[in-house]
Amino acid sequence: MSIINDRRIKEECGIVGVIACEEKPIAQEIYYGIFALQHRGQESAGIAVSYDGNKVAYYKNMGLVNEVFNEQTLQLLPDSKTGIGHVRYSTTGSSNVTNAQPIVFYGHYDRMAIAHNGNIANAGAIRRMLISKGHIFQTSIDSELIASMININLNGASPVEEGVYKACCQLRGAYSLVLIANKQLIAVRDKHGFRPLILGKKDGKYIVASESCALDAIDADIVRDIEPGEILVINDDLTMHSIFLPEAEKRLCIFEYVYIARSDSIIDGRGVYDARYECGKALAREIKIDADIVAGVPDSATVCAKGYSDFSGIPMVDALSRNRYIGRTFIQPSQSMREVSVKVKLNAFRTNIEGKKLILVDDSIVRGTTSRKVVDLLKRNGAKEVHMVVGSPPIKYPCFYGVDMQTREQFISYNRTNEEIRAEIRADSLYYTSIENLKKACCSKNQKNGFCTACLTGEYPEPVENEFGKLLFE
Amino acid sequence: MSIINDRRIKEECGIVGVIACEEKPIAQEIYYGIFALQHRGQESAGIAVSYDGNKVAYYKNMGLVNEVFNEQTLQLLPDSKTGIGHVRYSTTGSSNVTNAQPIVFYGHYDRMAIAHNGNIANAGAIRRMLISKGHIFQTSIDSELIASMININLNGASPVEEGVYKACCQLRGAYSLVLIANKQLIAVRDKHGFRPLILGKKDGKYIVASESCALDAIDADIVRDIEPGEILVINDDLTMHSIFLPEAEKRLCIFEYVYIARSDSIIDGRGVYDARYECGKALAREIKIDADIVAGVPDSATVCAKGYSDFSGIPMVDALSRNRYIGRTFIQPSQSMREVSVKVKLNAFRTNIEGKKLILVDDSIVRGTTSRKVVDLLKRNGAKEVHMVVGSPPIKYPCFYGVDMQTREQFISYNRTNEEIRAEIRADSLYYTSIENLKKACCSKNQKNGFCTACLTGEYPEPVENEFGKLLFE
Amino acid sequence: MSIINDRRIKEECGIVGVIACEEKPIAQEIYYGIFALQHRGQESAGIAVSYDGNKVAYYKNMGLVNEVFNEQTLQLLPDSKTGIGHVRYSTTGSSNVTNAQPIVFYGHYDRMAIAHNGNIANAGAIRRMLISKGHIFQTSIDSELIASMININLNGASPVEEGVYKACCQLRGAYSLVLIANKQLIAVRDKHGFRPLILGKKDGKYIVASESCALDAIDADIVRDIEPGEILVINDDLTMHSIFLPEAEKRLCIFEYVYIARSDSIIDGRGVYDARYECGKALAREIKIDADIVAGVPDSATVCAKGYSDFSGIPMVDALSRNRYIGRTFIQPSQSMREVSVKVKLNAFRTNIEGKKLILVDDSIVRGTTSRKVVDLLKRNGAKEVHMVVGSPPIKYPCFYGVDMQTREQFISYNRTNEEIRAEIRADSLYYTSIENLKKACCSKNQKNGFCTACLTGEYPEPVENEFGKLLFE
Amino acid sequence: MSIINDRRIKEECGIVGVIACEEKPIAQEIYYGIFALQHRGQESAGIAVSYDGNKVAYYKNMGLVNEVFNEQTLQLLPDSKTGIGHVRYSTTGSSNVTNAQPIVFYGHYDRMAIAHNGNIANAGAIRRMLISKGHIFQTSIDSELIASMININLNGASPVEEGVYKACCQLRGAYSLVLIANKQLIAVRDKHGFRPLILGKKDGKYIVASESCALDAIDADIVRDIEPGEILVINDDLTMHSIFLPEAEKRLCIFEYVYIARSDSIIDGRGVYDARYECGKALAREIKIDADIVAGVPDSATVCAKGYSDFSGIPMVDALSRNRYIGRTFIQPSQSMREVSVKVKLNAFRTNIEGKKLILVDDSIVRGTTSRKVVDLLKRNGAKEVHMVVGSPPIKYPCFYGVDMQTREQFISYNRTNEEIRAEIRADSLYYTSIENLKKACCSKNQKNGFCTACLTGEYPEPVENEFGKLLFE
Repeated sequence: MSIINDRRIKEECGIVGVIACEEKPIAQEIYYGIFALQHRGQESAGIAVSYDGNKVAYYKNMGLVNEVFNEQTLQLLPDSKTGIGHVRYSTTGSSNVTNAQPIVFYGHYDRMAIAHNGNIANAGAIRRMLISKGHIFQTSIDSELIASMININLNGASPVEEGVYKACCQLRGAYSLVLIANKQLIAVRDKHGFRPLILGKKDGKYIVASESCALDAIDADIVRDIEPGEILVINDDLTMHSIFLPEAEKRLCIFEYVYIARSDSIIDGRGVYDARYECGKALAREIKIDADIVAGVPDSATVCAKGYSDFSGIPMVDALSRNRYIGRTFIQPSQSMREVSVKVKLNAFRTNIEGKKLILVDDSIVRGTTSRKVVDLLKRNGAKEVHMVVGSPPIKYPCFYGVDMQTREQFISYNRTNEEIRAEIRADSLYYTSIENLKKACCSKNQKNGFCTACLTGEYPEPVENEFGKLLFE
Repeated sequence: MSIINDRRIKEECGIVGVIACEEKPIAQEIYYGIFALQHRGQESAGIAVSYDGNKVAYYKNMGLVNEVFNEQTLQLLPDSKTGIGHVRYSTTGSSNVTNAQPIVFYGHYDRMAIAHNGNIANAGAIRRMLISKGHIFQTSIDSELIASMININLNGASPVEEGVYKACCQLRGAYSLVLIANKQLIAVRDKHGFRPLILGKKDGKYIVASESCALDAIDADIVRDIEPGEILVINDDLTMHSIFLPEAEKRLCIFEYVYIARSDSIIDGRGVYDARYECGKALAREIKIDADIVAGVPDSATVCAKGYSDFSGIPMVDALSRNRYIGRTFIQPSQSMREVSVKVKLNAFRTNIEGKKLILVDDSIVRGTTSRKVVDLLKRNGAKEVHMVVGSPPIKYPCFYGVDMQTREQFISYNRTNEEIRAEIRADSLYYTSIENLKKACCSKNQKNGFCTACLTGEYPEPVENEFGKLLFE
Repeated sequence: MSIINDRRIKEECGIVGVIACEEKPIAQEIYYGIFALQHRGQESAGIAVSYDGNKVAYYKNMGLVNEVFNEQTLQLLPDSKTGIGHVRYSTTGSSNVTNAQPIVFYGHYDRMAIAHNGNIANAGAIRRMLISKGHIFQTSIDSELIASMININLNGASPVEEGVYKACCQLRGAYSLVLIANKQLIAVRDKHGFRPLILGKKDGKYIVASESCALDAIDADIVRDIEPGEILVINDDLTMHSIFLPEAEKRLCIFEYVYIARSDSIIDGRGVYDARYECGKALAREIKIDADIVAGVPDSATVCAKGYSDFSGIPMVDALSRNRYIGRTFIQPSQSMREVSVKVKLNAFRTNIEGKKLILVDDSIVRGTTSRKVVDLLKRNGAKEVHMVVGSPPIKYPCFYGVDMQTREQFISYNRTNEEIRAEIRADSLYYTSIENLKKACCSKNQKNGFCTACLTGEYPEPVENEFGKLLFE
Repeated sequence: MSIINDRRIKEECGIVGVIACEEKPIAQEIYYGIFALQHRGQESAGIAVSYDGNKVAYYKNMGLVNEVFNEQTLQLLPDSKTGIGHVRYSTTGSSNVTNAQPIVFYGHYDRMAIAHNGNIANAGAIRRMLISKGHIFQTSIDSELIASMININLNGASPVEEGVYKACCQLRGAYSLVLIANKQLIAVRDKHGFRPLILGKKDGKYIVASESCALDAIDADIVRDIEPGEILVINDDLTMHSIFLPEAEKRLCIFEYVYIARSDSIIDGRGVYDARYECGKALAREIKIDADIVAGVPDSATVCAKGYSDFSGIPMVDALSRNRYIGRTFIQPSQSMREVSVKVKLNAFRTNIEGKKLILVDDSIVRGTTSRKVVDLLKRNGAKEVHMVVGSPPIKYPCFYGVDMQTREQFISYNRTNEEIRAEIRADSLYYTSIENLKKACCSKNQKNGFCTACLTGEYPEPVENEFGKLLFE
């Protein structure tokens, strides 16, 4: 998924948790951690830290991390032993600060706070069940529901993990969680491990984060991935223990490798960069195209393109330039200027492509509208042929596990043949990666986990209720 | 309570509810309604309106009504049949937008919204009970608790008022409520009727508001006061019915007449202006002072002063000028300028008071620090004598019913004789209104209600738990 | 001019200047000073202070003084020996921060800053002249023009007052100025003295302000009024000297007494409160009305009403209540609610006026639209008769000296007889103060100054060029 | 200049001008134009458009283009025939909205507006001269000075270009200008052509912009570069003519190619991408290093690295990942976290570099502090050797022509040998591009222009006055 359609597919969130053996300015480290995860969500950002035992100070607001936090707002957060942070994806309309995370709440352990990445597949049923028991909800986000479920399953005397365990047994779908309660940091990854979660360490602190790049940003060392189904409890003397949910098939979202994660992250033992590069090589191995040059759609498809180029021997060039200030908010041009929009984001290097047969590598195609514009842009700048090579298979089914994909009708691959898609985007040819090759590319050496490929195959790891669609897209 | 100490005593809130027989821009009317109730709370303001059946749109923020709402934010609220509004008092420190009202929540009737004026005396016990049952709270305000209690006592099929009735039977303390749910507007006044609540009517609409001045502001006619213990349900065809809580002693907060309410409001049949005026006359009847002139501390004590002047025949003058831009936020002067602060707010008319024996009427004295400054200001501007006459009895006990009075130790009347207080504020003499005279002044012709005078007598209408203090002042 | 039409007539500005014998936090004192002058302008506020010799730090923005300045923004201003402050009136449309004052500029004495109250009558001619010489202007306000004129008339070696003197000889119209340059504070009042300006003193500091209420607010003592035509130069050792412009007729704007100034100010030796009170008495002396009660339109006309009541013996009552949160910004109601607007601002005390013949005192009538609404409001609340008594003569001519009065066509007095006006506002009778009586009321004991009554008589103290209107109202 | 030190060297500004044959929403196109030039300045943004003849509407504020402009602020700007836009670089401290551009002013042609990229070398002398003639300045930026100079040299009857011509004859230094006045758009490039300026065309409009990428963004076609010394006047019937300043040596700033301009721009006929690529090839031709891989510091040095790789045959890898949300505002870590900062911005791909001898290409080195951190980062991630190759010669002299370079003492190249620099940044070897090779790489085929290389050689194209340094860095 490249910049040109990064408003189409969105990962839900990024999370960070920190626990220190003494009170430290951990809000700073959480700040750098969520800043490193900014690519996972640009709508809102928030940090919550404990103080004075079970009190919690927090600040959250709409905006990018460095818009929400400045010296003034960061100083609102006292030195602390435990804290969590969150970035949330951007949508239009229903986005407001009420839905920002972390969710801070009063429960059995006085003040608690939770941050969540993922999507609860049976959220509707659980909400109805809880409301029927008299509970109220003040937001439309799953995280408030998880907080309620944990608290319901706690009672004053029992350890936090007991409530978490019981709650998780009732939750379906994708959730990586960090929770602060009872002076502990609890990290949870759902039994399928849909979303990544990793543990790091730095002088007198443990850090949990969605991706390893957040650990790097604060100079922490990787300890290990949180296992699917693991509930990890870390105490403020830095001792820790884990309990595990009933075992289940491992199903890491394969699109974490395709475009969600940052290329410098390592997820479940596999480097994202390497996965993309291998995918490009696999494509070159299978697909022989008579072309002069290879180029990737910046930024996310350049690694895949490089793999293709290196294996095929067809030289790689920079075909497209990307405006690096494209961000969260951008005024949509009026009707008369609509056609301009691709060039605001992407421009072509004419001298590199003029008269050339070009292989254009993109990581995925969702709606196809921008693919068509890019092909057109390249041809108007002199490319003789444009062959589109896609680093993932066609997307055909909606995601219920945390990626904001459109309804089926919006996918260009829905009810269209390969040839029809090619014609639609006006490429000279079109090739997708096979599911097998993609899986192979994403496998680590000692691969323990399988992948969730439901959006490609329609085979959901868990039964999907009717309501899901409604809830997901309401 | 005059301007000079209006940061000392604060009423909790003002509320407005509107229901119309068809979709109309009622957010506008709620806006004018809460603007008219601005004196009841300057911290935050909010409006929630229903749309599309049981959806709710809302906007709330920190600030005065005309800071929070402008054309842009008001337009966020669609035409609607039901809506409520709220203004909240200003404190320092813990004030944040999370605590702003209305509270909008998902419950048995999908989206519901509630606004609350008052203070739940057994909030602590109820919170603990609900948390022990697994409920969570996201704010520290009573209104969230009331929302939970109502929803717990509802079930899908039962009418909203049933849940409200059952919830109210468990709540102690002061609460006037407006609630939108199930396309109805529900207005509730606790069984003692601590806080006012009045019903008005205007072409195709019913309006409920804390004070009649809000009805005037939107040109609605007064229908009647909501009765203590009444749960009034208005449907969107403008039919209505009431159910009643178990009967109890009527205990309207007498300080509503003394300084909380706007002087042009009529509460439980008694005009606030008239009550203050009568109080001034009663003071003049009892207290004979050898003086040349009478003056009131602007703005709230001028009516009482006029009553005193008219009865005693001692002419009334303007002794003090008030800066009418004094508002919610004002930079406190640094140490070196601290003594200046009274003159920033109040100035003296030297030509009116020079060489005169002056009776200064204030409506109440809480801490006494500013009374002392005002006496000093008048003397420095030539007043020969300053006799302080107070339109209420000494305040000696904390309030648990919605007025943010300080702990007992902060009252100047705590453990001090009248003479000690007089010496402290450096007046030449000091007189308070008796409780009997104040009650008489505040009685309407067909008085049905008694008054809560707990802050004067320590006789609380309901047993006070130990925890109250902690909860109230946490 | 009462609250109900305070968007109709606007004074241009209020100014404050401070000079201290050593570096002190004078920005604080300027803050309190302009806060006390807030009634003279609610559009923008600003403070500039010198530091490091001839550098100047400043902060200005749109909004009320306590919106523009908070602890953070006030701390941007270092301790200083000289500083000035300004508040500016509110208009719609063309108001923006570029036009906020003080104007800070680089000139002969490096950084200088100026603040201005008034209106330069020949601004158009001077602007054209300066532009033709190649000067540019970045704002549409006179103050930038005055700054240019002063700098043009300086040269590096000459004292600041020389440049000021020469500039003033070319300026026509109304201007009270404070200027910081060359470590001096210079205060200037135009030769007619249209606008007030007063000198005060406080431990180690001199303060210059538009009105004495600003001196009171910072606990400074009044020294004396700045004379019409005086250029007062104060050095940072607190020595001072004055030079004078060519003598001219004294013409203080009489509307300063009628409604512009705060009632606790003393201008040119005459208390504003006293002038208004005397005006009320004079009205009672001349105009005998068969009525039961007298009332003033709050806030500004209550003093005049009291004078009327005290002289006539007809008792004064509170007929109208004013919402004291009416401020700078207020959403105009949509068409359907337009008629509501008066009651949002003013409400009637029915019990005080029901069945009564009422004399309603207002300080002035400009357009008359709100007078009509108030009369209507009183009658709907039971007043049997409403006799309007106005504390000033009919306004018939535009002002070119700093009051933002409408064009002639907008005055209700324009081309209408007294009877026509009465019918228009639907009062039972209508009386104006005579010019003679108003002048007498505004005279101090040792009256040296005459008054500008051009808006009443059309006799402008200086010839009025055609362009004026265009410039004033552009 | 790569991301890691992009707070060290800053280009002054980017400008856009548009003229249309009829009133159109050109503010939108200016918006996209300056958005494409965002890399030239991130401090403030502004747009001014003419309307109603010679009136000008404008909006400018601190922040990135998409922070300053949203639908609301963009709608403040009416349809228009002429308009200009500006982005300004970011500094700390003295940055405030007063210094934002365009400068809008009243002059001979009523309202005019100007936007400027560059630095006037004799600004101090001109300011003193103008102030001595009585002119005042309200900002500390050159553009106000240019506006004054143009207006001084105009008189009502003469064409705008006459004033511009005369003004330019007195200005020294670097200036590319766009000006709207008298319904014309005037574009000016100083006689040396220090800064780029290019003319484009699109249906019924001409566009002038700092770089061709801005033309691309609005789908305009390149017409030609504005010539050094050219004053181009375009009328609103789209006729145009040029006059020329006295001829001088062409001296385009060579750092426009090195790192200032966007790689997809074409300046004076030479593609920036191509120049960087050729530079990399030239480096490879001269410098033979025994290494396994080549990598560039993202983003700006990757093109140069690719040139090196392609010529040398040493394979290029991605060694560093850049956080693409690094922007204008970023909280500096506290002392204890200072060492973290590079990894917040850049991370290493260990698998790509482990055990490898690495050639790291950067485009320039200014202070060297971050170069050292990057070398360290790479070595800690397993690089066996790091050979630094720099795409430009050592910077040794300050720039007086619009690039905010530090004083000489801050350059790592100042008074240090190559070996000393290498040791300082802890690289295994260090190579710079020679001036000759850099010039060759930046030459277009029909090269007419020379280059300004003053920062490399100290040979300034114009005599440098003592005051320059003071003015530049004040």
